[in-house]
Parts: sequence; C-alpha cells; structure tokens
Amino acid sequence: MSSLRPTIDFLLHDWLHAESLTRRPRFADHSRETFGAVLDTCERIAREKYAPFNRLVDTEEPRFDGEKVILPRATHEAHEAYVASGMLSAAQDYEEGGMQLPYTIEAAAGTFFATASVSIGGGLLTKGNANLLMVHGTELQKEVFARNEFGGRFSGTMALSEPQAGSSLSDIATRATPDGADFESDPLGPRYRIKGNKMWISAGEHELSENIVHLVLAKIPGPDGKLIPGTRGISLFIVPKNLVGTDGQLTGERNDVALAGLNHKLGWRGTTNTLLNFGEGKYPVRGGAGAIGYLVGRPHEGLRCMFHMMNEARIGIGLAATALGLAGYYASLEYAKNRPQGRPVGPAGKDPSQPQIRIIEHADIKRMLLAQKSYCEGALALLLQCARLVDEQHTGTPEAAEEARLLLEVLTPVAKSWPSEFCLEANSLAIQVHGGYGYTRDFPVEQYWRDNRLSMIHEGTHGIQAADLLGRKVVMEGGKGLQLLAARINATIEQAIQRPELAEHANALGQALQKVGAATKSAWATGNPSDALANAVPYMQAFGHLVVAWTWLDVLLVLPAGSASPADEGRVRAARYFFHYELPRIPAWLRVVEMRDPTCATMPEDAF
Amino acid sequence: MSSLRPTIDFLLHDWLHAESLTRRPRFADHSRETFGAVLDTCERIAREKYAPFNRLVDTEEPRFDGEKVILPRATHEAHEAYVASGMLSAAQDYEEGGMQLPYTIEAAAGTFFATASVSIGGGLLTKGNANLLMVHGTELQKEVFARNEFGGRFSGTMALSEPQAGSSLSDIATRATPDGADFESDPLGPRYRIKGNKMWISAGEHELSENIVHLVLAKIPGPDGKLIPGTRGISLFIVPKNLVGTDGQLTGERNDVALAGLNHKLGWRGTTNTLLNFGEGKYPVRGGAGAIGYLVGRPHEGLRCMFHMMNEARIGIGLAATALGLAGYYASLEYAKNRPQGRPVGPAGKDPSQPQIRIIEHADIKRMLLAQKSYCEGALALLLQCARLVDEQHTGTPEAAEEARLLLEVLTPVAKSWPSEFCLEANSLAIQVHGGYGYTRDFPVEQYWRDNRLSMIHEGTHGIQAADLLGRKVVMEGGKGLQLLAARINATIEQAIQRPELAEHANALGQALQKVGAATKSAWATGNPSDALANAVPYMQAFGHLVVAWTWLDVLLVLPAGSASPADEGRVRAARYFFHYELPRIPAWLRVVEMRDPTCATMPEDAF
Repeated sequence: MSSLRPTIDFLLHDWLHAESLTRRPRFADHSRETFGAVLDTCERIAREKYAPFNRLVDTEEPRFDGEKVILPRATHEAHEAYVASGMLSAAQDYEEGGMQLPYTIEAAAGTFFATASVSIGGGLLTKGNANLLMVHGTELQKEVFARNEFGGRFSGTMALSEPQAGSSLSDIATRATPDGADFESDPLGPRYRIKGNKMWISAGEHELSENIVHLVLAKIPGPDGKLIPGTRGISLFIVPKNLVGTDGQLTGERNDVALAGLNHKLGWRGTTNTLLNFGEGKYPVRGGAGAIGYLVGRPHEGLRCMFHMMNEARIGIGLAATALGLAGYYASLEYAKNRPQGRPVGPAGKDPSQPQIRIIEHADIKRMLLAQKSYCEGALALLLQCARLVDEQHTGTPEAAEEARLLLEVLTPVAKSWPSEFCLEANSLAIQVHGGYGYTRDFPVEQYWRDNRLSMIHEGTHGIQAADLLGRKVVMEGGKGLQLLAARINATIEQAIQRPELAEHANALGQALQKVGAATKSAWATGNPSDALANAVPYMQAFGHLVVAWTWLDVLLVLPAGSASPADEGRVRAARYFFHYELPRIPAWLRVVEMRDPTCATMPEDAF
Repeated sequence: MSSLRPTIDFLLHDWLHAESLTRRPRFADHSRETFGAVLDTCERIAREKYAPFNRLVDTEEPRFDGEKVILPRATHEAHEAYVASGMLSAAQDYEEGGMQLPYTIEAAAGTFFATASVSIGGGLLTKGNANLLMVHGTELQKEVFARNEFGGRFSGTMALSEPQAGSSLSDIATRATPDGADFESDPLGPRYRIKGNKMWISAGEHELSENIVHLVLAKIPGPDGKLIPGTRGISLFIVPKNLVGTDGQLTGERNDVALAGLNHKLGWRGTTNTLLNFGEGKYPVRGGAGAIGYLVGRPHEGLRCMFHMMNEARIGIGLAATALGLAGYYASLEYAKNRPQGRPVGPAGKDPSQPQIRIIEHADIKRMLLAQKSYCEGALALLLQCARLVDEQHTGTPEAAEEARLLLEVLTPVAKSWPSEFCLEANSLAIQVHGGYGYTRDFPVEQYWRDNRLSMIHEGTHGIQAADLLGRKVVMEGGKGLQLLAARINATIEQAIQRPELAEHANALGQALQKVGAATKSAWATGNPSDALANAVPYMQAFGHLVVAWTWLDVLLVLPAGSASPADEGRVRAARYFFHYELPRIPAWLRVVEMRDPTCATMPEDAF
C-alpha cells in the first residue's frame, strides 16, 4: 500500500482543495493537519488490525454454533480498534460526541480499511443506520439507538430484501401489526409486531456489539387485513435484537429475531450475511406473537426514508470496489518488480546466457499495471469528488448545494457501478500479472477478485443502476442534472484545450460528451421506456467511461506545468492510457443505444 | 445441459459435415450413428459420474497424508468410468486398441465432461502425453508407456515449468546426466539421472492409476558440466513415478520423484496441481543420485517434441473454457426461467397487485443471457472447426492438409485465448443473472467462474498467445497463414452478401477484416518487434472478435432459408448480438495497434 496515501493526499488537497472546507463554520476547527491526523490513524489501524487478517477472515468463515455466530478473534479486535478510533461518529456534531469531520475525509479514510480487508468492514452499515435515525427518528430513538451506534455499543443493519423480493422491494411481505391498544404510546415510537423473513442481511447476527439495531422494511396491513401492494405500502421499523429501555440499557429480553441461516459466499467472508426470521416464535417476547418493532417516521413512507441513505451507501460500495482494485494493483506491482522472467523482445533478448529481466520490464505487464492504475486511481478520484459533493450539498451555499444535489443524482449510479465493473477487471489483471501464482491462495489477488465480485450485485445491481441512470437520472427535472454535468465537463474541456499537451484529450472528451448526449436523446426518441431502457447497461458503461475520462482530464489540470515528478508522470500516463485505450470503446456501447437495438429485448424465450 | 447435445449435433453435422469424414479410409467404419453412440456414452458418463460431484471436488480439495494424495472417491469412480468408456484411446489405430475416431468427435465428446466437471478431468494430459510418445518415442517406449496410458493403467503429466521458469522455458535448470557408462544401452531408451524441481504439474501425484508417466524437460550438461543456455539445450525424458520393466509391469522400485507441495488454487480443485522434486533423494533408487529418466527423441530437441502437442493442448484449453461458459449459460438460463422478480418496464409494470414476472422477461436479463449464448456457442463453433482442421491435417489431401496446418497455426492462439477471456466474462454474467444467489456457493455459477479464471493462465498466458499470434503466426512464411484465413473469411462474405438477411453482417465482417489486415501492417511498419508487440493483446482481442464473427456468419449460412425453428432463431439472434454489440469493439482495440501506441511500453517504472 505504498502509494495509497500520497495518492489520497494529492487528490484531496491538490485537486479537490479539501482544506477550503475549513473556511466553513461547520469545519472551522479543522485544518490540513487534523485531516492528516485522521488519515494517519486510519492508515495505522488498517495496517495493524486489518491487513494481517484479511486471509484469515476468508478461511475462517463465520459459523453458527446454534446460539451464537462465531467470528475470528481478529475481527473482534479490528472492530474494537475501529470503534476506539472514533470514526463511527467522526462526521457527527460536536455535541453528539462527533468531530464534525467532512464526509470527504471520512470517505478517504475508509479507503484504508477497505484496501486492507474489505470484509472486516468499517462500520458503513452502522453509520448509515444511525445517520438515517438522526434524520428520521424521534429524539428518543436518536438517543437510545443512533447514539449507541455511533458510540459502538450497538451495531446496525439494513433489512430490506426478502427471499422473494430482492431488486423488487415493492413485493416485500413482512407484516407489521399494531402491538396492543396502547401501541402508539410507547416512548420508543409506535410499537408494532413484525413477522417475516429478511434475506441478504449483512452483519445480521454476531457478537461484535452489545446489540444489533435492525432497520426493517415492512408493510402495515390495511383495514381489510391485506397488505397494500407496491412500494407505497412500505413502512420502516427499528427492530432491536435485544430489547432496550428508554435509558438505552438492555432490558434483558431477547426480541424475536432469529438467525435462519448464514449465506456461504464466494468472498466477503469476514462479514456475516444472513437470512433472518422476524417473529417466527423462536424467542417469544412479552407474551405476544411477532418481533417488537418501533415505527420510524410516518407509516407508508419507509422507502423514502431509506432512499435518504442510498447516495452515501452507493458511494461506499464504489469506494470498496475501488479499494479492492487498488489493493490488487499494489500487490501485482510489487510482484512485477520482483519476479524475474523472460528477456526483452527483439535482438537484446536473444542471448539466453544473460539473466532474466523482471517482468515489470515487459510491455504487456506494464499494460496490465497501467490499466489497473488508470481504472482504480480514476475511480478513486471520481468517488472522492462525489464525497466532496456530499459535503457541498450539506454545507455549501444554497445554490452550490442544489448543484451538488443534482450532480450527485446523476453521478451516483456511475460512482457505484463503474468501479464495480472496472476495478473487478483490474483485480483480474492483477491475477494475470502473477501468472500461475496469482491463481493460488498463497497470494492475495485471487481473494480481492472474489471479494470484488459482490460489488456489481449489492446496493442495487448493475441493471438497477443502469435503469436508474437512463430511466430517471438523466431525464429527471427536465434533464437538469445531465445539463449541469455537461456544463462541468465543458468547463474542464475549455481549460484543457488551452494547454497544448492536453488539447488532444480535451477534443476527445468533447466528442465523447457529444456522443453520450446524442445517444441519450436517441434512446428516448420514441418516448417509450421499453425502447429506451433495452440497452441501459451499455449506456451506463459509456456514460461511466465519459465521466472517468473527464475526471482524469480534470486531475491533469492541476499538475504543475512541466512537472518531472514520477508521481505526476504516472498520472499523465494513466490518463493517457484511459484516453487512448478506454475512451475509444464508447462508440461500440452507444451504437445499440442510439439504434434502440431490440436484439435482446425481443429475443423469444424458446430461442435461448 | 438441456441444449448442449443439439447444439453439438447441429455444429458437427449441419455445419461441419462431420459425416463426410467417413468417406476417408481411416474413418471408413464410422457413420453418423457411431459418432452419435460415442456422444451418447460420454454424455451419460458426464451426467452420472461427473456433474453430481462437481461441488464435492471443489470442497474436498486434494490433500497429502505424507505418503499419498487423497482425492474424493467420486473422482476415482469418474476416472474409472472414463477409462472404461475407451475414450483415452478412441483416436488411436484399431491395431493399438483404438477406434480410429476423428478428433472432431473426440473433442465434441470432451465438452460433456468439461461442462459437467472440468476439474475431474477427461484424460487430456494422459492422452497428450501418450500421443507425444506415439510420435517421438521408440517402439518399446510406445509399448511400455504410451499403450498403458491409452489403456488407463498409467496416467501422464507434462513437467515443463519450474519455480523460476514459467513462461520462460529457456531458463529451466533441471539437469539430466548420463546414468553410468552403459546409459545408452537401456532398452527403454538412453538412461539419465534427473535432478530438479518442477512447478505447476497438474495430476503430478495421485492414486488414480498404477503409475504416473512424467514427461520432463531437462538439460544435459555440456562437456564443461554447464547447462546450455536457451531452449536449444532442452531435452525430453520419460520419468515414471514407479520404475517399469520392459514388460510394462512395475518393478516394485519407486523412482525418486517426490511431492514437494500441493498448490492451493482458486478453482480447478478436482485436479491436483503440484510442485515435484526430481532426484532430491527422498526415494533413492538403484544406488545412484537422481531420478531415473529415459531420453525421448534426440538430445536437445525436447522442446520441438513438446511443441508437437501444443496445438491440441491449446484447443483443449479453449474447449474447457467454452464448456465452463456453457455450463454457466445453462444454469443462469434455468434460473432466469424460474425466478419471479419485478414487473415489466412502462405502464404494464405499474400495477404492483399484478404478480411478478420471471426475470427472463426483463430486457437486461435477456441481454446477459444472449451475450453468454453468443460468446459460448460462437467459441464452441470455432473450436470444433479447429478440431475439424486437425482431422484435415491428418487425413486430408496433401494440399488440404497443408492449408489446415497453416490455418491452425493462425487460429490456435485465438482458439485458446478468446474463450479463456470471453467465456470467463460469460461466467460473470451468469453470476449477475442470479443476483445475490449467484454470489453464494448454493448455486454452481461462482465455481464455474473460479474454475475458468485458470484458462487465461495455463498452456501459455494471454500475453504469450498474443506474442505468438502477432509476433509469429500472422507473419510466418510470408504471411501465408493470414492470407489463407482472409481468403476463407472472404469466401464466407461472398456467400453471405448474396443473402439479403445476411448482407449487413457480411459488410461489417468485410470492414473488420480490412481493419485487422491494415493494423497488422501498421504494427509491423517499423519492422521492430518492440513496436509491433507493445499492444499484442489488444490486437489478439480484435483478431479474436473478427474470427468469432466470421464463425457466426459461416454458421448462419447453413440455416435453411426462412427457418422458423426456435433453435435457428436463437442462432440468428446470437449472431446478431455478436455483430451489433461485439464486433463494433474492434476499432478501439486496433487504434493503439495501428498507432504503435507506446504509452504502456515506455512507462517509467517509478511512475507506477
């Protein structure tokens, strides 16, 4: 991980000017030094408590002894170190015990943990859960649940999916019925009994914390006892594993939330992933049937509350995918610098009595390393920029905040999907650089590749992101988000075109922008969503390449003219790789979008 | 595996006219019925003895108890059934106990085993080993070793790589010194003592057969005791695990070949992969130092003997990659037909009280299925065509045999590399179709993906294949191979262009052919291999897409005009997918080849 820190410092300060955030009241006590101290701490914990155990958590998969889920001791120690660092509450107000850290810095710091061991985890779910409660919860819900999550006593989950309802949340069947006549008078919130099964719940059962706060989507039956079809019927509940008093202490009663099974995964094995039964009677509680849950926000507005968390959750997945990509890049770079194999191409390599050269001297190995660097550092830049926009949305002027919101609407599906796809490809290249050794479990790269395969699936699959981007984000509010993004891209182009060394890239980016704009129009030319969305994924791939190319060009703008530093030369090369090898892929993706190609959409089922 | 057999039958008979081989003397006793009987048998054994144990061999990895390597009982039973089927010797002469089966049919039959469980294996190494001995061995070597391999008593390995010499075989350091003054008079061949370490030896140790015949590359020191540098110094030896008399019976003496370690792999766990020590003294034999080995062919010509095997070995890897791709396609197709999730795009999907539709009804799922079909059936067609060329090379007229040889020179790197890359991508899409379930080990697709990641590495990495294609095959013999391929492609185009429904594809293929030809010239315009080969992999990717597009168009030519069968509609769609979604990728790959883009090749090491 030799070069992650300088890369982050460069992007945060030279490119994103993170220090300028300290001129805002919320961040006024901060400075480049306090930001640096946070990064130092996280880098150290990741190095000492995460990285050495990444293989261990893969081989010692979580197991259930009938009562408890057993995780390796190392996971407990990593979790404790993470809690002790204060990072769970770092972004919170001072009066909440937080340090009012910008999200930009929090996100950057998270990269260290994910690079070291993505599945030991860095509190993403717990923070997301508690953040949601800080926005939508009552004062007491915040006090009892959110603050104990920020403090590390409790951890959190998001319990959305069900076995029959994954991408299609409107089909959830978990029921929430009022718990007695006085259900509305519970100080912790309107009290319901919850019954149903929840699937894919990460960190759904473990002994890392005193309690687990499940945020559960469920439907409150109508007067006829039936569930309201669709997403409108969905409400949100706090369902703690152990019941809690208004003082935040456990009452000693176990709630009726039972582990029904651990999912055995291809990777990401440091985190349990569970099927949970709510209210099926394994732990009968207070003489009623069903797990006890407290309503958050208003009935039937559960999904809206959840959506509040989605941008940051998706940026988090993008960052995890990127961190895994970077981990593979660093590992394969190290290997390539040390592995002797083969001789130069051409006459110089004809003499077998000469010693072998290191593989980093071969053009094809350099290609595979540069591709990884170009993908992963490009993705990192994009994600830190999105994090910076989150800060802008929360602390900028009203106009800047509105622009940030619009840009995030459009960029979030890309920030989630693009690293999921291309940093996975980077991991495959990292294996390839290692040759046969890369295929063994003696080297870390195969695990990165397995871990990263999750990224295109969770928090909205690739297909869901693409439908969101082309079906909603680029057309919403009259296309304002896309127009604003285009304006930003054009601003970068205008600056770049004045610099002779960047003019070629600027022109190429301008053409790509024009093509994506035209394809967006063509896709929607019939106004029929079936036509437009038939090729949403190729559209998203092209859109992502446009955005990453823009990001690279924007990064180059801040390099000192004529810089001779190796790091800057590396950025120039990685950007050039992207412009020469990657950006030219856009026309192939957009061709089918422009033509609204129906080859796939109209494929008869019996012809497969 | 519902549609593998009809697909194979279609390709063998409707497209490749395999039955016409029976007009040749060697295959005169065969008929479509005998071919069918072979396929029936293999399909049945694969279904009964392989497929049910594919997950088992993944979880019960080979282990060494200090004396023996333990494999699951199921692997032994599958091996026994395979041997009993006669497939090990199926291609051999009648007088050798074979059935003079065309390689085309043998290759097609092998697909069933690889689709069912690629790593239980189908005797590829044993057959390759014995075939080599049939060409280069003495009569007694054939009798004692090769025939017992074809009969299943012995199995075989290829021991080429060493820890310090993987892709660079010229650097092997295993030594072979004459064993006593009478070393040349051993009836089994000139007898040497072998010392060295061999890495990545598949099936290097196990109890599946009575004996293991290692074919070992080693160097005979010169008069000064030094090894000759380079590949010219390499000789080939038979080194049996257990010594054998001239009667083919074990003498009871263990040769000094010791398991130094099992490699723990990402996939392909049904086959042991080993580090072997030759002659390090663990099993001292006949009072001398070193393992006993018998020279095959002439000294210093070992690599030439090995190269004899390479085309078929590489076709074998391509077929394995393809079979894994198909396995994932069938699994995800089955899943997509049965999994309800979501509703149609547009107004029809707005009513959540309507039941969910099956995911195969979603355009993006169809896209992912059609991509798999297009990749994997295209690859299967290409590989069966290559197998057909092998038969042509062996049994055609001298002119046809020479053309087949030339075409195989050019096509083999593609036949190995293209399925390795794109059928792996197909496996990733198969996971994606499954959503979260695809990421669990409860479904087979994650294993296919892991298994298939090996394909780009073994039998020559992607980089090695690309250097072979652009550096040697398209320029060898004055470019005759490439010219011949271009003539074949043009012949397909000329036929297709006359059919209105194929004219668009024919034109697109013509343009792609022209582009690849021009890029080949541009790459070599300076005559400098460093310039030409700097982007050899993108060249190979474009070349592969050209070849697969040609294959698909050629397949379409044999469809009955106006056919309304679902299978034919599927082929038309899969081809259209390839022409609309895949072929347009060629310009992006070729751009850097044409420009001899030095971005990667000249990247300074300290800039990474």
